[in-house]
Amino acid sequence: MSQITQPSDAHETTPAPLPWEERPAGSDAVVWRSQRNPIIPHDLIPSSNSIFNSAVVRYQGGFAGVFRCDDKRRVMQLHAGKSRDGLSWTIKNERIQWQPHDRKAAEINDFQYGYDPRVVWLEDRYVVTWCNGYHGPTIGVGYTHDFETFTQMENAFLPFNRNGVLFPRRIKGQYAMLSRPSDNGHTPFGDIYYSESPDLTHWGRHRFVMGATDGWQATKVGAGPIPIETDEGWLLIYHGVLTSCNGFVYSFGAALLDFEEPWKVRYRGEPYLLAPQAPYERTGDVPNVAFPCAALTDPASGRMAIYYGGADTVVCLAYAYVGEIVAFVKANSSV
Amino acid sequence: MSQITQPSDAHETTPAPLPWEERPAGSDAVVWRSQRNPIIPHDLIPSSNSIFNSAVVRYQGGFAGVFRCDDKRRVMQLHAGKSRDGLSWTIKNERIQWQPHDRKAAEINDFQYGYDPRVVWLEDRYVVTWCNGYHGPTIGVGYTHDFETFTQMENAFLPFNRNGVLFPRRIKGQYAMLSRPSDNGHTPFGDIYYSESPDLTHWGRHRFVMGATDGWQATKVGAGPIPIETDEGWLLIYHGVLTSCNGFVYSFGAALLDFEEPWKVRYRGEPYLLAPQAPYERTGDVPNVAFPCAALTDPASGRMAIYYGGADTVVCLAYAYVGEIVAFVKANSSV
Amino acid sequence: MSQITQPSDAHETTPAPLPWEERPAGSDAVVWRSQRNPIIPHDLIPSSNSIFNSAVVRYQGGFAGVFRCDDKRRVMQLHAGKSRDGLSWTIKNERIQWQPHDRKAAEINDFQYGYDPRVVWLEDRYVVTWCNGYHGPTIGVGYTHDFETFTQMENAFLPFNRNGVLFPRRIKGQYAMLSRPSDNGHTPFGDIYYSESPDLTHWGRHRFVMGATDGWQATKVGAGPIPIETDEGWLLIYHGVLTSCNGFVYSFGAALLDFEEPWKVRYRGEPYLLAPQAPYERTGDVPNVAFPCAALTDPASGRMAIYYGGADTVVCLAYAYVGEIVAFVKANSSV
Amino acid sequence: MSQITQPSDAHETTPAPLPWEERPAGSDAVVWRSQRNPIIPHDLIPSSNSIFNSAVVRYQGGFAGVFRCDDKRRVMQLHAGKSRDGLSWTIKNERIQWQPHDRKAAEINDFQYGYDPRVVWLEDRYVVTWCNGYHGPTIGVGYTHDFETFTQMENAFLPFNRNGVLFPRRIKGQYAMLSRPSDNGHTPFGDIYYSESPDLTHWGRHRFVMGATDGWQATKVGAGPIPIETDEGWLLIYHGVLTSCNGFVYSFGAALLDFEEPWKVRYRGEPYLLAPQAPYERTGDVPNVAFPCAALTDPASGRMAIYYGGADTVVCLAYAYVGEIVAFVKANSSV
Amino acid sequence: MSQITQPSDAHETTPAPLPWEERPAGSDAVVWRSQRNPIIPHDLIPSSNSIFNSAVVRYQGGFAGVFRCDDKRRVMQLHAGKSRDGLSWTIKNERIQWQPHDRKAAEINDFQYGYDPRVVWLEDRYVVTWCNGYHGPTIGVGYTHDFETFTQMENAFLPFNRNGVLFPRRIKGQYAMLSRPSDNGHTPFGDIYYSESPDLTHWGRHRFVMGATDGWQATKVGAGPIPIETDEGWLLIYHGVLTSCNGFVYSFGAALLDFEEPWKVRYRGEPYLLAPQAPYERTGDVPNVAFPCAALTDPASGRMAIYYGGADTVVCLAYAYVGEIVAFVKANSSV
Amino acid sequence: MSQITQPSDAHETTPAPLPWEERPAGSDAVVWRSQRNPIIPHDLIPSSNSIFNSAVVRYQGGFAGVFRCDDKRRVMQLHAGKSRDGLSWTIKNERIQWQPHDRKAAEINDFQYGYDPRVVWLEDRYVVTWCNGYHGPTIGVGYTHDFETFTQMENAFLPFNRNGVLFPRRIKGQYAMLSRPSDNGHTPFGDIYYSESPDLTHWGRHRFVMGATDGWQATKVGAGPIPIETDEGWLLIYHGVLTSCNGFVYSFGAALLDFEEPWKVRYRGEPYLLAPQAPYERTGDVPNVAFPCAALTDPASGRMAIYYGGADTVVCLAYAYVGEIVAFVKANSSV
Repeated sequence: MSQITQPSDAHETTPAPLPWEERPAGSDAVVWRSQRNPIIPHDLIPSSNSIFNSAVVRYQGGFAGVFRCDDKRRVMQLHAGKSRDGLSWTIKNERIQWQPHDRKAAEINDFQYGYDPRVVWLEDRYVVTWCNGYHGPTIGVGYTHDFETFTQMENAFLPFNRNGVLFPRRIKGQYAMLSRPSDNGHTPFGDIYYSESPDLTHWGRHRFVMGATDGWQATKVGAGPIPIETDEGWLLIYHGVLTSCNGFVYSFGAALLDFEEPWKVRYRGEPYLLAPQAPYERTGDVPNVAFPCAALTDPASGRMAIYYGGADTVVCLAYAYVGEIVAFVKANSSV
Repeated sequence: MSQITQPSDAHETTPAPLPWEERPAGSDAVVWRSQRNPIIPHDLIPSSNSIFNSAVVRYQGGFAGVFRCDDKRRVMQLHAGKSRDGLSWTIKNERIQWQPHDRKAAEINDFQYGYDPRVVWLEDRYVVTWCNGYHGPTIGVGYTHDFETFTQMENAFLPFNRNGVLFPRRIKGQYAMLSRPSDNGHTPFGDIYYSESPDLTHWGRHRFVMGATDGWQATKVGAGPIPIETDEGWLLIYHGVLTSCNGFVYSFGAALLDFEEPWKVRYRGEPYLLAPQAPYERTGDVPNVAFPCAALTDPASGRMAIYYGGADTVVCLAYAYVGEIVAFVKANSSV
Repeated sequence: MSQITQPSDAHETTPAPLPWEERPAGSDAVVWRSQRNPIIPHDLIPSSNSIFNSAVVRYQGGFAGVFRCDDKRRVMQLHAGKSRDGLSWTIKNERIQWQPHDRKAAEINDFQYGYDPRVVWLEDRYVVTWCNGYHGPTIGVGYTHDFETFTQMENAFLPFNRNGVLFPRRIKGQYAMLSRPSDNGHTPFGDIYYSESPDLTHWGRHRFVMGATDGWQATKVGAGPIPIETDEGWLLIYHGVLTSCNGFVYSFGAALLDFEEPWKVRYRGEPYLLAPQAPYERTGDVPNVAFPCAALTDPASGRMAIYYGGADTVVCLAYAYVGEIVAFVKANSSV
Repeated sequence: MSQITQPSDAHETTPAPLPWEERPAGSDAVVWRSQRNPIIPHDLIPSSNSIFNSAVVRYQGGFAGVFRCDDKRRVMQLHAGKSRDGLSWTIKNERIQWQPHDRKAAEINDFQYGYDPRVVWLEDRYVVTWCNGYHGPTIGVGYTHDFETFTQMENAFLPFNRNGVLFPRRIKGQYAMLSRPSDNGHTPFGDIYYSESPDLTHWGRHRFVMGATDGWQATKVGAGPIPIETDEGWLLIYHGVLTSCNGFVYSFGAALLDFEEPWKVRYRGEPYLLAPQAPYERTGDVPNVAFPCAALTDPASGRMAIYYGGADTVVCLAYAYVGEIVAFVKANSSV
Repeated sequence: MSQITQPSDAHETTPAPLPWEERPAGSDAVVWRSQRNPIIPHDLIPSSNSIFNSAVVRYQGGFAGVFRCDDKRRVMQLHAGKSRDGLSWTIKNERIQWQPHDRKAAEINDFQYGYDPRVVWLEDRYVVTWCNGYHGPTIGVGYTHDFETFTQMENAFLPFNRNGVLFPRRIKGQYAMLSRPSDNGHTPFGDIYYSESPDLTHWGRHRFVMGATDGWQATKVGAGPIPIETDEGWLLIYHGVLTSCNGFVYSFGAALLDFEEPWKVRYRGEPYLLAPQAPYERTGDVPNVAFPCAALTDPASGRMAIYYGGADTVVCLAYAYVGEIVAFVKANSSV
Repeated sequence: MSQITQPSDAHETTPAPLPWEERPAGSDAVVWRSQRNPIIPHDLIPSSNSIFNSAVVRYQGGFAGVFRCDDKRRVMQLHAGKSRDGLSWTIKNERIQWQPHDRKAAEINDFQYGYDPRVVWLEDRYVVTWCNGYHGPTIGVGYTHDFETFTQMENAFLPFNRNGVLFPRRIKGQYAMLSRPSDNGHTPFGDIYYSESPDLTHWGRHRFVMGATDGWQATKVGAGPIPIETDEGWLLIYHGVLTSCNGFVYSFGAALLDFEEPWKVRYRGEPYLLAPQAPYERTGDVPNVAFPCAALTDPASGRMAIYYGGADTVVCLAYAYVGEIVAFVKANSSV
């Protein structure tokens, strides 16, 4: 069975145990839902209309995260939160106030909106990427040491872009990011690209990674949680979108990317891992959405806990074994 | 706390008590739902596919109303109904047969469809406005004295228009109406305008009142119930539409319009008051719709009962205190 | 009361009894749902994401069928299944492998996708029609004797076409098919046409039958189950689509076609017979869909069991009396 | 031969002779072009990018007009002009500065843009209508006595509207206007309506007159010059639009409206009178446009001079005999 | 050099000489325009707005043809015409009145519109195919012996279809037709298919031939003149469409189809043969269109005269040597 | 009068004299056309369908350039060319074969298409930017020393982007580029952004410069020639697009950008400088296009020669005085 070779939170001296529930008896699903879903309701904090598509990491023996909390104007905001167990969360009612990293970054520091964050421990700090409003959506980049104060760097790319996801370490000396160029609306297309940077500010050497194909991923695809380093390559959980006559349906699946040249797809699972079928995925502010933004792993056991948004309304949790997903992707690969 | 200065049903000698339920314990919501929702099911009458977006008023010590009842062809119809308590309704199974007001009005009296009615006591009669099919949607105008016979006047405007809402009295000697120019489809835009008339037949002096902005009201806005006269100006409950990747979402909020020149917005609440989150608002013939068409008030207590359509399928009820809404709008105003 | 003059499964020596549940007490509905709905869940077989829009017939004293099973790639597949009682089904986990009828048919035998099948006993075999992917959707034609091996003939028409439905016998010596020319997407239009063939391979003498009108059938219409031969003409159950601001809504109704010249509509019921209002029709992979593909009848009693897809996710069952539907269509005809 | 019964410029004591050129030898055209076309070039005045779709009337023994002059920002403006002979024009380089009619009209007097004017002598002054920018296009109304100072009244209608054309006298005591409700873009639809007003400020009793049909007028239609009073009814020259795969094509034709109830179409010519075929109609800022805004007549001879825009770039002139047009419309009527 | 193996007008005992002009000095074009273009002006007959996209054949020592003449309503009509030299044409001012072939065909004989005809000598008569309006565009089929009386058969296909082009003889005993399934508007897609028929009434065994690719043929392709039989296969001249930001551009190129199985493309020329660059192709009712519908050949010399429409307005002529085109296609093939 | 402070071709020891023609007598235009237009015909080289939107620079006492030559497949290609006088050009018939700059660049060196080039002398070489096909349009970057061999570097940005224009020197030590993020089609939007790079490979610190406004630049804007350094800031000639009902119209105007922080617009001229009004701009492969890609200047005289594409078909030349443009922009600024 495939192994996690490098956990992304290896800096944690006493990593908190994963939230975990065993696979339901009789099921042979590779990914299964928490019985406690949704683990965060839409109105956990007074200011929120909905909380979903959020990113969590291990932090100081517990957990911390950056949460997409649409407020009651339905404006997209980012909020910080913490948890002892990864299930019960305390989220600040006030949104994150980004401090500019330097005088230049101050020029773009006027916050319009932010959504769909990802968080990764990168060298010496937690780096946050998100969809940041700057004359349209693009990839915001910032960091925090303590989930109390947050610093904003330059946007990684020109508009229009979404789903910027960093790798958890430099690759051949360069920082690396996946992203999905888009347009300024509900974008009926979208492929995953790879970009490199020496400094997290200037980006280049852009490469196409993989595009929309058919079925559940016929309209567009976008990277989900931070890629997980395994002995078979980078395990990428990603979302795919199908357009029915009644709109978009967001499911998620997985692929394995080359270790050294991650824009090369080694295996790509044809079936989805999880499609919106539970009531909290079927109905909500946007029906039929399951959108993963974070995954926590336990290297020893191979367990993985996937945090995903349900119906653009609530935060949900699903479980899997990394080794089983790797095996599933290899056995059902379109590549 | 702000006061209702002029109830729109002051002509009622013994006004019926409002339907009312107190705010749920522990809630700090400004508007809260009835526990009995939906108060009118989609199939209350044999001919109806759905009953929603309807208008009620106090009438002879009880209540009466004009109801949007889409029939089983899914053609939009208007039906009259009455109620002792505002909760249990008797709606006629046959649609309203409009009688022409005069020989001229007879020329446009061929009923194609009617929907989203509003009703207001105006001087000496109940005046009904609705979206009337005449080579496209426009604002129909008619009246009744008894909710048994109904008389149709001229359409107020050229097509295409929806959400025509009269003020409950003349302003500076002129009748006044809010409306939302639209197009002939599912109109992806829409602002609220103000028009004047000396005779309810000829309209002019059109003024822009307010437009779509962002968040829950990014796509279009339209007046809801008859404006309520308060010491802070006209309280306007209005719907707003957000376009998700899966379609329109209808919520409602409030604004305060100038007393003398109602096209001037004094305050406009940025957050919504109620968004579609209950099951009967989330699913139905059109998912994620909360659409208010009427509000009854009790001047003494400041209580308000808002009638709104749920998911274009059923009639629902929500409650609030007028003074609290006024305070909320002023405290959260974008103006 | 109108009679079924020629059951389409008269070849069955001991026809299985229909699945049947009486009309609920107090209801006056012409068509009513099974209390056991959905009778086939979305995950009856391991490979399926959903099972819906499927066709069943009587077969050797029981029942057999061809099922639309979208797999976990969300690719549309056809599977064979059998049942003792029409309610509990055994569906093969592997899709149907079509064998080419001859050397020519082998040229188009590369299966891309198949969906929305219909099945009819025609002279000496069960003929299957379905929406077949060949450079876009068109009408696939094949047959089986035993629901174990299936043979593919030529596609009936050029792309783009859907909802090809055969009549259960030759009419004036010619095979006859209804179909709905479409386009390659979610087709916002669609009328029903009639075509003739001497050999099930070459088709011509195409006639317009009926088009979209308004209300529940304003966007498009398509034939549903195999037409039923009655003393009033061919009873056609068909689906209609309404476009709300949140997408398509699929309901179904009925019409009576001329016996000799079935492209002439004798009566067409204005109201729908069933619209998506049950939870399993309201939510699912495509909300608000009720899509009929098969109907079984009992000539003696006039009972009919209609198999229809719910929300593009599950198989459902509804019941009616043929005579009552005929009477309803005649009493509520727009023709 | 049909007669002009009431010239619209009967107030002129010594009406200027019409510009006139005889029908080319060998031609049997009902309408023929001036050999001097375009009579006004796109850059007649320094500030203009283009001059087209303009309205002229007889004025003090000569001619005056209101001209659409798009400036070099390509913003649409209205300019006044005068001419001795109707062919050589002096147009002011500065746009018309509208003075508000009263304190109310001052509220809407902030000029955004104006285009496609019409001018008519109405009782005691020249009344101008145009497409006026007020939160979208609607019908501006103003007047002048001398083509030097211009006064703006209230907009006639709510947005969105274009092609507002007044009748040259009251009908049954009411002012009367044709207009074409539209949307805020390049409107792919459009029908002609009739509205009445007691005071040129409040409008009502709206009636559908005629809609788009097919061929050259398949997409939309709009009134052109001021209707001409003949013994067969009001002669209406109107434009029609056909949508080719390369955009809109504007031609013009004619109809005869009932004298007393002008929303009733007595005759409507199926063929166009003039389609864009000359080089100055085929190419320009908008290819393939012939758009009439004014017609001058000589009651004695029945001659008519039609001013129309060519390719949204220049002003052109065409000639006809009113009696011949009336005869043509009657002989080729679709009504 | 490749040879014409079977001229399509071999039945002509004394075939008229081709219209012909030599390649201009200095040019190395494979296809070159007539210096007399347009050879038929838009107003050759009194009733025509435009004459274009027309089909001609050799007939009784001269030439005859079926012409698309849009009338002055801009309704599409078919007219018959004759010529001594193929350059000067006499076209009837009245459209073709189709007589039904039999009682069945009479059911569809109500002429709505017809356009883009092709004509081929097939066995014993001239068979005409065209885009025929029957609840949308489809392929009309008819025949004539004398270009005086014309008989209409059944439409070949269900709507929506255009550019039906017959092969000039049976292939393996079956009639054969190319066509381009489309939709009901300006169809932004379109591929060429092959269909067979035993009787010109029933069609089947549909095969995909070739689709849109890129460049001048990126949007859609459609068969042009009747295929020409050469020793390298069927030479197919076809049009291709590119979508610029200002609409469709129609050019034409060529391919070679397999002799026995014409749905197999042997060679397909990547560059166009002729693109709209002459003034009469650049401007007109639809700018930038060159659309071929007929080609005459002289087997002895290999000369070819191609009739094509210019700008949807006029008929033009271009010349080539069949052998040179074949060589060009083979030398520049994308297959 | 404003001065050119730093000519972009100061490396030329004996700079060739500009092509030049004086302003026509009687004209007061700020920019005027060459009487020799188009200076390069569409078919200058055998392989070209059209030559337009091309970039020229001074080179070794004469001129050199990179030309957009769409070939006869209508595929977009880049060709090199040279000229003695800037008017008569020798363009290679074979397209530029890009050599990869390094092993990494070789990964993206598979040429799909290239168009709308710009060329600038940057430090020690001529750097070329263009719209490069890499899974959609993005900004290609390369260089040449001799216009014989060309080297390709990394694409500057992720797709989708067009109109990448480099500044002629580093600004505060960083390379600087303007570009216009777009989408993959005919993009109905587009603003100009500024990006920085330390190495021409990695780009960041993206800033919004200016967006579409109204009139001739209502739909989108994009940088044209290399910005010109003047004592009033960077003079930017840019194109703007207006969407008529018949498609896009491309004109050009000018703005002045801050010297140190070029994303700050100091002045922006509201009127256009040149709009498509000449025949070779009005008709061609894309009607109504004037698209500038290069400007040569003579610092001593202030003369400027602007190379622009006409109707996406030919290369044209216009003239101006830099000082006059600067004065015009300041006098007519919207900023």
